[in-house]
Amino acid sequence: SIKTSRGVAQWRPEKCIGEHKLPGGTLTLDLPSMSIKEAAEKGAKTYIIGIANRGGSISTVWITSILEALNNGMDVASGLHQKLADIPEVKETADRLGRQLFDVRHCSRTFDVGTGKKRLGKRLLAVGTDCSVGKMYTCLAIEQELKERGAPTSFCATGQTGILINGTGISVDAVISDFISGAVEAISPATAIDHWTIVEGQGSLFHPSYAGVSLGLLHGSQPDVLIQCLEIGRAHMRGLPHVPQPDLKTCITTNLAAARLTNPEAKLGGISVNSSSVTSAAALDYCKKLALEFDVPCVDPLRHGVTQIVDEILK
Amino acid sequence: SIKTSRGVAQWRPEKCIGEHKLPGGTLTLDLPSMSIKEAAEKGAKTYIIGIANRGGSISTVWITSILEALNNGMDVASGLHQKLADIPEVKETADRLGRQLFDVRHCSRTFDVGTGKKRLGKRLLAVGTDCSVGKMYTCLAIEQELKERGAPTSFCATGQTGILINGTGISVDAVISDFISGAVEAISPATAIDHWTIVEGQGSLFHPSYAGVSLGLLHGSQPDVLIQCLEIGRAHMRGLPHVPQPDLKTCITTNLAAARLTNPEAKLGGISVNSSSVTSAAALDYCKKLALEFDVPCVDPLRHGVTQIVDEILK
Repeated sequence: SIKTSRGVAQWRPEKCIGEHKLPGGTLTLDLPSMSIKEAAEKGAKTYIIGIANRGGSISTVWITSILEALNNGMDVASGLHQKLADIPEVKETADRLGRQLFDVRHCSRTFDVGTGKKRLGKRLLAVGTDCSVGKMYTCLAIEQELKERGAPTSFCATGQTGILINGTGISVDAVISDFISGAVEAISPATAIDHWTIVEGQGSLFHPSYAGVSLGLLHGSQPDVLIQCLEIGRAHMRGLPHVPQPDLKTCITTNLAAARLTNPEAKLGGISVNSSSVTSAAALDYCKKLALEFDVPCVDPLRHGVTQIVDEILK
Repeated sequence: SIKTSRGVAQWRPEKCIGEHKLPGGTLTLDLPSMSIKEAAEKGAKTYIIGIANRGGSISTVWITSILEALNNGMDVASGLHQKLADIPEVKETADRLGRQLFDVRHCSRTFDVGTGKKRLGKRLLAVGTDCSVGKMYTCLAIEQELKERGAPTSFCATGQTGILINGTGISVDAVISDFISGAVEAISPATAIDHWTIVEGQGSLFHPSYAGVSLGLLHGSQPDVLIQCLEIGRAHMRGLPHVPQPDLKTCITTNLAAARLTNPEAKLGGISVNSSSVTSAAALDYCKKLALEFDVPCVDPLRHGVTQIVDEILK
């Protein structure tokens, strides 16, 4: 579950000086491994808690490192539900030293409830068979490709990692539940008619823990285009060994039906596959098969890029 | 939108001394109309804000009455998102006079995320074509009928009115959105195998403002039985003149499909109709037609009672 740090390292490499692991940590971002003191000496300004764990709590074993970062002159950023600012030791140290604590999952804005009123501009939303299947990566890749082609576009971050990468956004899973769709309407507003807002997806309609967030996001973002994301070989829903993955066709049909409540024109624009568990030949076969079955481009953005999907969207 | 006060007046008449209207108020609960001073003299202990408005804000024009109630010796209860305790004048007055402020929509409990794990006991959930179609009334009527028959049962309040009536519960629309289904799992836990937990429904999967709450509630409550609620003659979704009511069959099918993610045995147990806009003959015809079409009992609980539905559930 280091997807927060991995996202920042992948999409903002120019801002990343190094990685800091606790003893026994085996995962890596392929950044230079260093101590907090070394990082500070090399100019690191912010220590990011890179983990996105279930429930979003801050482990007490991290607190020593957080305090060390503050004591070495760094600000600290976290994308967890539990706030850095709510840990007395951390808050007191930051206040005393004049450091900033960024609890990016929380926002102080209040929202109106959603209206479902049609608004101008084009919006794309990534939806998933499950959590952590590549929705954010897919969206950022599509945004990048649209920008390279000169199409007016912007990325709308809806989760902690997207916010850290993008510098703005709202974690919809931290909004009061009555205001999910309203918050999403507020952060993906009407635009020029040919502008593409690429809305980061969250969770899955088929995940028993988080489906409410996914549905509010689907209604609030009012997408013209859905990109269905999945991972090859996923055995069960993330964190829930007793819940199987949904059937892909059912997943697509259900997402489209729900999306059409606020945008009757919503359609599937492509399928994005995380194929990291299979060979590149097997990945290509798999994508060809799905492209035929669902009559849309199907790619692994990391292996094949998103050119085909962007061609389809702009058609 | 006086459904909060109406619910309390209908289900706890023995606790209601009177109603207090602002100048120009035309709606009534058929309780004796009185001033705040009179109510206090007659022994009223709590002043309830009876309105359930869109967005849940406290109007500044109510504050004079709230202060008057506090000054006349009453506590004050509200089911709105905006907290009484966040209004400095109100908080200061309550503190100074030793009165209690009950912001029942808010709870200080934290929850785990939902797991979707199968748990023991029987659960029933009311679902709606729309908001305010009689879900809570239907649930309380079913609970009452089950109790009269000696079946072990309990009511699980999930909204402000239900909480004021029941004395316990959680407003799921005020929970952080990542924890909707988890909160519902916590308040409708495993029970004895023949115990019925009657879970109050909220909103509608087809309401663009609130569907996320409804889906999390559906997954978290893991219902064995759904009761579909609707109102005859409703022109559009509540508060949204541009959004039509869903087709009833689509609504039932969609709710059942979503419910089966956490309880593959979920089935429709009955249809509950608010028929107040038509004659009793027309209401009976309408219910007979739906009962035939969907092969379950269909009643207006207020006109026909819920005997048929409870017979079906216990079958």
